[in-house]
Order: sequence, then C-alpha cells, then structure tokens
Amino acid sequence: MTKTVVIVMAMEAEAKPFVEHLQLKKDETIFLKGFKAECYAGSLDTTKVYLILNGKCHKYNVDIVGTVGGAVTTFAAIQALHPDVIINAGTCGGFKAMGGEVGSIYLCTRFLNHDRRIAIPGFDAFGVGELKTVDLNQGLLDHVGAKNGVVSTGNSLDMVKEDEHYIKLHKATCKDMEGAAVAYICDQLGVPMFALKSVTDIVDGEHPTPEEFLKNLGTAAKCLQEALPKVLSYISQNSFEA
Amino acid sequence: MTKTVVIVMAMEAEAKPFVEHLQLKKDETIFLKGFKAECYAGSLDTTKVYLILNGKCHKYNVDIVGTVGGAVTTFAAIQALHPDVIINAGTCGGFKAMGGEVGSIYLCTRFLNHDRRIAIPGFDAFGVGELKTVDLNQGLLDHVGAKNGVVSTGNSLDMVKEDEHYIKLHKATCKDMEGAAVAYICDQLGVPMFALKSVTDIVDGEHPTPEEFLKNLGTAAKCLQEALPKVLSYISQNSFEA
Repeated sequence: MTKTVVIVMAMEAEAKPFVEHLQLKKDETIFLKGFKAECYAGSLDTTKVYLILNGKCHKYNVDIVGTVGGAVTTFAAIQALHPDVIINAGTCGGFKAMGGEVGSIYLCTRFLNHDRRIAIPGFDAFGVGELKTVDLNQGLLDHVGAKNGVVSTGNSLDMVKEDEHYIKLHKATCKDMEGAAVAYICDQLGVPMFALKSVTDIVDGEHPTPEEFLKNLGTAAKCLQEALPKVLSYISQNSFEA
Repeated sequence: MTKTVVIVMAMEAEAKPFVEHLQLKKDETIFLKGFKAECYAGSLDTTKVYLILNGKCHKYNVDIVGTVGGAVTTFAAIQALHPDVIINAGTCGGFKAMGGEVGSIYLCTRFLNHDRRIAIPGFDAFGVGELKTVDLNQGLLDHVGAKNGVVSTGNSLDMVKEDEHYIKLHKATCKDMEGAAVAYICDQLGVPMFALKSVTDIVDGEHPTPEEFLKNLGTAAKCLQEALPKVLSYISQNSFEA
C-alpha cells in the first residue's frame, strides 16, 4: 500500500543533503499564497515523500525556527497532503548525563515543553504539555541504529535554570525548538508522528551552544541524510508502530 | 462596503460576554475535522464578525493559550475566512512603570517576543521578532478610550529576568501569551492586524500574577465586551488605519 510521509524540518541546511540525495523537487502549488513554507516532493520505493520546510522569515530572512513555525507548517501540511505519518526531523542539543554525543541519532515519541510555565491549576500541565505519540517498532530503531529518546522543546537556544528543571524532571535526551509543537498539532488532528533528531551540541558540555551548533550543523545534517532514507525504507515495508 | 473582521481570542471566559452581547452563533463547518478552534459568527452594522477561539486542549482540557495555538488558529482563520482585518483580543499583564492599571485598555500595533533567545547572528533578531503591523487611526483610539501599546509575548505566565530584559528594552505595555504569534502570521500572509488588550494584573506590582489574573479575569472580559463593539462600529464606518 502506498504511504504518504511528510517530513517537517526547520532549517534549509539540515534538509539540503537529504533533498539532493532523494532528488526531491520543489512544489510551489500546495500552500496558501504568501505562506513561506516550502514543499519538496518525491518518492522512495512505493512511499510518497514530502519534505516541508518552515521557510525563510519574510522579515528577518533566516530559517523560521521555533514552535510557531513548526506548528503552522504541520497544520498546513496535514490539510494539504493528508499524510499517513509525520516525521519531525532535525538537529538538537544532547545531554552528556543522558549518554548523548555529537552525532547521536534519536527516534522520539515523547515530547514536552520546557519554557511554558503557567502556574494555574490545569494550565500548568497543559503548559508542559507532555505527550506520547506512537509506540515505535523496535525493528525500526535497530534498522536506523537510533536510540529511543525524549524531546524537550523551547524557543531559545540557551537553557535557563527554569528550563533545566523540566528537562531534568522528564529525563529528556533531545533539546530542540520544534518537536513538541509538531507533535501537538499531529496529536490534535489524529496523525501518527515521531521525531528523528541528530545531536549537534552537548548542552551540559564545556562548549558554548551557538559555537558548537554551527560547527556541527553540517555533520548532523549528513547524519539525517543517512538516517532518513533508512526510516523511509523501513516504514515502506513495515509498520512503524509496535 | 462590507468588511470581514476576525477576532482571535484564547480563553472562553474572555470571549463569553462579547459572544452573548453580539449574539454570535457557533459555526462548526469552517475548520478541518479534529481541529479544536471554535468559530462564532454574526454581524454588527454592515460588518461580518467572526470570533475565533483556539478551543480546548484535546489532552489537558483547558483553553489552548500561548503562541502555538494563537498562530495555528490565525492561519486557519485567514485560510477559511479571508478577513479584511484581524484583531487579537484578550487580557494581558500591565506595568505600573508604564502607567498600566487593572482594567486599562490598549490598542497595539507593535509586537515582540520576550522568550525566544537565539544567540546566532540573524536568528537573534528573528527570535525577538519585533514587528509593526498597521498605523492605527487616532480617531479609533479616542473612540475606544484606549492607549496605544506595545505587546510583548511569551509562553509563560511568570516573568524570569531574561524575559524582563526584552520587555524593558522595548518599553512593552502589555505582557501576553499570543499577540506576537498572531501578528507574525498576519504579517506573513499580508493581513492587517492589531491587538486589543485589557489588563488583568500588574506584573511589576505587589500581587502574585496567577492570583491577580484569576481575580480580575471577569472584569477584564467585561472591559473587552464593552470595547470590542466600539472598535467594530468605528471600523465599519471608517478605516482603522491612519
């Protein structure tokens, strides 16, 4: 059975090696006029593959990173493409204390937000927004050579002590800027979703995050380019769910 | 000429008095199946009025507050309703130091984010995402009895010192959880937008924010219910832009 997979990514540099590897072609017809998200379409075996980037900010001319871009892009992609599964792929910060190293690959189905503190009963849990999406097949993890991880999402590249509290509490392995937002929209609309994250920097390490991130972005993008086709070929022949 | 105005709000309690006052009717046909946003439709004079709520979280059963909900709702409303103008209405924290009091009403066209710190050149400015939408007509401000304000948006109800830095730097008058996200999507898609904000709590005052917020939510919602029809009647007969 043909499956439709949508891969949501935030940064052009993260996506470029994969787009070239699969020779995906830009499709400018699918989104609302003026909307900055970009769609690259193609296939692998019998699977239809759409890679969606949030696009460049119309005002600040950088990749639209963060939860707002990730959520709106996901919503628009679900509306336009009716995918069987969404994969949020991208780079992340890892944690030495959790066994993370630069280049580690994680497949993740648990998400939370570490920068949404709302101290009103009911809203406090919504703010953290802990969410479990699917149960990944162990075969998929083995095929990709990935660990099963937990994504903690926030809109800042740094980590203030208030963020660290939630990250440690939930034993997060991946600190990113989009995962929980993509997961939330998928969960609300009933679309199966997981994340593929490649570590660019060690949050609890000795190097400043911006430097380490920029230094390792290319390596991490290459890791994604190698891991994503493995994910796609596995799920074209199997279920991704346990 | 008939105008279509979309009002985006986050909390049912903020919206309820206005929905009742204008006898808006729920329309369940306009959004994607499963999407939690709610649409209430009606009119005032010759203006078509749609009030859109982010809806209740499918998982935590509270109003979907924050930037992800605000952005996705705005995107979906623009796609479905093609509004001439979007108003983000809601409550906010005010600042004694900026002349704010509980019940103060602000009309705002300048927005920024105070919780998106990305210390990479280019991304730093995107993170703060300072944005000016329209130039409001002074007649509208006078008609409503509102001050012209600056909204600083973040996903937490509290204010950590990192947030405070950006709020003070940009002389924000209103601290909210959606404004900059709604403004960003409108700006990207070319839809004129401004915010109407009513102060529930004084951020730099002596009372804890959650207590003060809950205590004054009803009063602020009443202020919105009184101010919104003034805004609508003015813009049905005039331009909202200077």
